[in-house]
Amino acid sequence: MTMDSLELMRNLAQPSTGKIILLILDGLGGLPHPDTGKTELETADTPNLNRLAKEGTTGLIDIVSPGITPGSAAGHLALFGYDPLRFTIGRGALEAVGIDFDLKPGDVAARGNFCTADKNGLVTDRRAGRITNEECARLCGLLDGMTIENTRLFVRPVREHRFIVVFRGDGLNPAVSDSDPQQPGVLPRAVSALKPGAAKTASITNKFIAQAKRLLAGQHPANMLLLRGFSERPCFPVMTEIYQLKPAAIAVYPMYRGLARLVGMDILDPGTGLEDELKTLKANYSAYDFFFLHVKGTDSAGEDGDFERKVSVIEELDRALPELIDTGPDVLIVTGDHSTPAVLKGHSWHPVPVLLHSRWCRPDRTTEFGESACTSGGLGRFSATQIMPLAMAHALKLTKFGA
Amino acid sequence: MTMDSLELMRNLAQPSTGKIILLILDGLGGLPHPDTGKTELETADTPNLNRLAKEGTTGLIDIVSPGITPGSAAGHLALFGYDPLRFTIGRGALEAVGIDFDLKPGDVAARGNFCTADKNGLVTDRRAGRITNEECARLCGLLDGMTIENTRLFVRPVREHRFIVVFRGDGLNPAVSDSDPQQPGVLPRAVSALKPGAAKTASITNKFIAQAKRLLAGQHPANMLLLRGFSERPCFPVMTEIYQLKPAAIAVYPMYRGLARLVGMDILDPGTGLEDELKTLKANYSAYDFFFLHVKGTDSAGEDGDFERKVSVIEELDRALPELIDTGPDVLIVTGDHSTPAVLKGHSWHPVPVLLHSRWCRPDRTTEFGESACTSGGLGRFSATQIMPLAMAHALKLTKFGA
Repeated sequence: MTMDSLELMRNLAQPSTGKIILLILDGLGGLPHPDTGKTELETADTPNLNRLAKEGTTGLIDIVSPGITPGSAAGHLALFGYDPLRFTIGRGALEAVGIDFDLKPGDVAARGNFCTADKNGLVTDRRAGRITNEECARLCGLLDGMTIENTRLFVRPVREHRFIVVFRGDGLNPAVSDSDPQQPGVLPRAVSALKPGAAKTASITNKFIAQAKRLLAGQHPANMLLLRGFSERPCFPVMTEIYQLKPAAIAVYPMYRGLARLVGMDILDPGTGLEDELKTLKANYSAYDFFFLHVKGTDSAGEDGDFERKVSVIEELDRALPELIDTGPDVLIVTGDHSTPAVLKGHSWHPVPVLLHSRWCRPDRTTEFGESACTSGGLGRFSATQIMPLAMAHALKLTKFGA
Repeated sequence: MTMDSLELMRNLAQPSTGKIILLILDGLGGLPHPDTGKTELETADTPNLNRLAKEGTTGLIDIVSPGITPGSAAGHLALFGYDPLRFTIGRGALEAVGIDFDLKPGDVAARGNFCTADKNGLVTDRRAGRITNEECARLCGLLDGMTIENTRLFVRPVREHRFIVVFRGDGLNPAVSDSDPQQPGVLPRAVSALKPGAAKTASITNKFIAQAKRLLAGQHPANMLLLRGFSERPCFPVMTEIYQLKPAAIAVYPMYRGLARLVGMDILDPGTGLEDELKTLKANYSAYDFFFLHVKGTDSAGEDGDFERKVSVIEELDRALPELIDTGPDVLIVTGDHSTPAVLKGHSWHPVPVLLHSRWCRPDRTTEFGESACTSGGLGRFSATQIMPLAMAHALKLTKFGA
C-alpha cells in the first residue's frame, strides 16, 4: 500500500452527527472449558449480545497478526486504528500518562513494583504481597522529590504495589535495562545503558535504587523496589485530526485512560464500575460522537484462570446492555483487545470475536455472539485496525475514495 | 508495517520444550472429480486426518496471493515463514544444494535435462525417456571436469534425466537465458546474456553445450542436453536464529532437502518412503523441536493427472498417521505447499487446506479435512507465511508483543 490506513481515513473522514460506541471487553476471546467445549463467551447467558449479533454482523479480528499475543496497549491502539507494529509505547510512559502524570518531552518514565527482599537482598515476592493503594501512596511519599545529578525524580503511586518513577532533566535516555529480574529468588539487577547515550540515566537510576533501598529498609513487606519499561512519551497523531471525531474515553483502569489520552480522547469520569460508566455515557452523550467504553473484569478473570468469573462478568455486561443500547448509537461495536482464555491464565494470540450493530450493516446468518459463531460471520476474519474504518463507514462518516 | 513478520518472530521467539511437526503433503490441494464433485482429499478415506480436524482447527492458505500458482520452492519457503516474493531462489541453485553440492559464492548453477534430439537437432523428448539414475550418473561422468575460459565446470547427476552444471570461476553472472525451449519439435535455444555483465557466462555455456553435444552424440536416447534456471546460491536468514528452534528436515526428494538446508535445518536420513521417514522421526524425536516432513507422492500423482493415485497416496498417509501422532508433538500441522489438482495435471493457484492440531487451538465446527470443510474452518483464509507464527504460538514459543 502506498497510502496507509490512517492516511486514508484522514483523506475520507468528514464530520457527521452519527454516533459510535466502541465497547471493549478486555481479553474477551477465550478457549473452551474442557468439560463443555464452550468458551467463556459461549457459556455466558447473553440474550442481548445475541440479539445484537443476530441483527448485526460479526467476525473475528487479529490484533497484530495470526499467532501474535498482544499486550493491552498494542491491542487498544489496533482497535483505535493505529498499526501496533508502527505505533509503540513503553510501559513506563503508558503507566505515567495513565495516572494523569503530565509527562513532558525529554522525561523518562519507568514502571515500578514495591517488592519484598530477604536479608540477603534476594527478591522473595515481586509484588510485596500486593500492598494497599494507601500504603503504596505512603511509600511513594517517602521516595518522591529526590534530585540526583541535577535530575528531578517524581515517584507516584499507581495501584496496589505498582508505582511510577519519572526522571526529569537534561540528557536523559530511556535505553536502559530493567532492574526487575522478573522472577523471585534472585537479586534485583543493576541497571545498565543499552546505548552509548544512556550511561547517565543508568547511573542516576542505580543511585535512586540504592537510596530507595535505604529508605524502605524498615517497611517490610515493601522493603525494596523493581523498575522496568523505561520509556519516553510517544507522539501519536490524534483521533480528532484523523477521523474528524470528537472522542471520549470511559475507563475505570488508569492505563486505558492514559492510552486514550495519547490518541487525543477526552477522559470522562468513569466512577468505579459498569453502572457508573453507563451513567457517564448518558450524561455526556450529546457532547461527543465517539465513545470508548472499557470493561476490565473479563481480562482480570481470565488472567486469574477463573472461567466462571469471566462468564459472570460477561453476563453482568449483557444485563447492562439495554441501557447502553437505549442511548441509540448509530454504530455499536463490541469486541476485545485480545483473548485472555481462563485455561491459559494470560493473554493469547487467538482471534477476538467482534460484533458490529448498525442500521447500515449487512446482516449475516450469525444468531449468537461467540467465537465459534463469529467464525462464519459476515465480517470474516480481518485485522483489528480495520475496526475504525468500518465504524466510520457505518456511521456514514466517510466519503467515497477515488473518482 | 515497520516490522516484518520474520523480525517479529526474531523479537518474540524463545526456546521451549514444545515440539512442532510440519507435515507437508506436496501439492495437497485439489479440484473435484467431474463425476463425484469431490476433490482428491475429500474422496480419500481419512479417518485420522478427520479426527485431527475435528479436535483441532482448520483453514485455507494462500501461498503467494490469490490467483498465483507457486513453484515448490516458493511454496515451501512460505510455509517456513519466508515471504516468497522477497526470498527467491533460482532452480539451478536449489537443485545444486539439493544434492549436497557445496555451492560457493560466485558459482553459477543451472539445472539440466538429458534429452533426445533427432538428426536435425530438433528435441523429440525433453526427458530422454526418463533414463535411469545410473545412466544419468554415467553420462554426467562423460561431461564433468571441463575447463572453459578459465572456468571450471562440475556436472553432477540428480535423478533420472536430471542433472546440474555448476560454473566456478571469476566474473560469472547468472543473468543468462535458458537453452531449454520447454517444448518438443524445436531446436534447443542458444544461451544469451540478459544483462551486460553476463556475456562471458553465456559464451562459456554455449561452448559447454556444443562440446556436450559432441560427447553425447552416440548416447541415444540421451544424445543432447537442455539447461535452465541459471542462478546463484541465495543467502537466507536461518530458522535457528529467527525462531530459536532446532529444526530438522525429513524429505526423500533432494530439492526439498536442499531448500531445508538453505533455511538452516539439519537434514536427517529420509530413507526411501513414508515408513522410513517415520522411523527417522522417532529416532531423532528428542534431538529437535521442529520437524519438516515431506511427502512427494500427492504432487507427483496430481502432475500425472492420476486422481485415483493421489487419493491412494493420501489414504496411505492417513493410515501411517497414528504412528506420527504417537510421538506426541505439541503442535501438528498438516498442509501442502500448493495445490496440484489431478484435473489440471499441474500446480495451481487454489488455496491449500491446512489443519492445526494442538492442546491450545480453539476448535471449530469442522469435522473433516477437505477443501470444502476448511472453507468454514476457524483459522479462516490466510497467508501461508502465518503458518510458522501460528505453530510457534501454539507451542508456547512466543512472548507477548508490546506493552
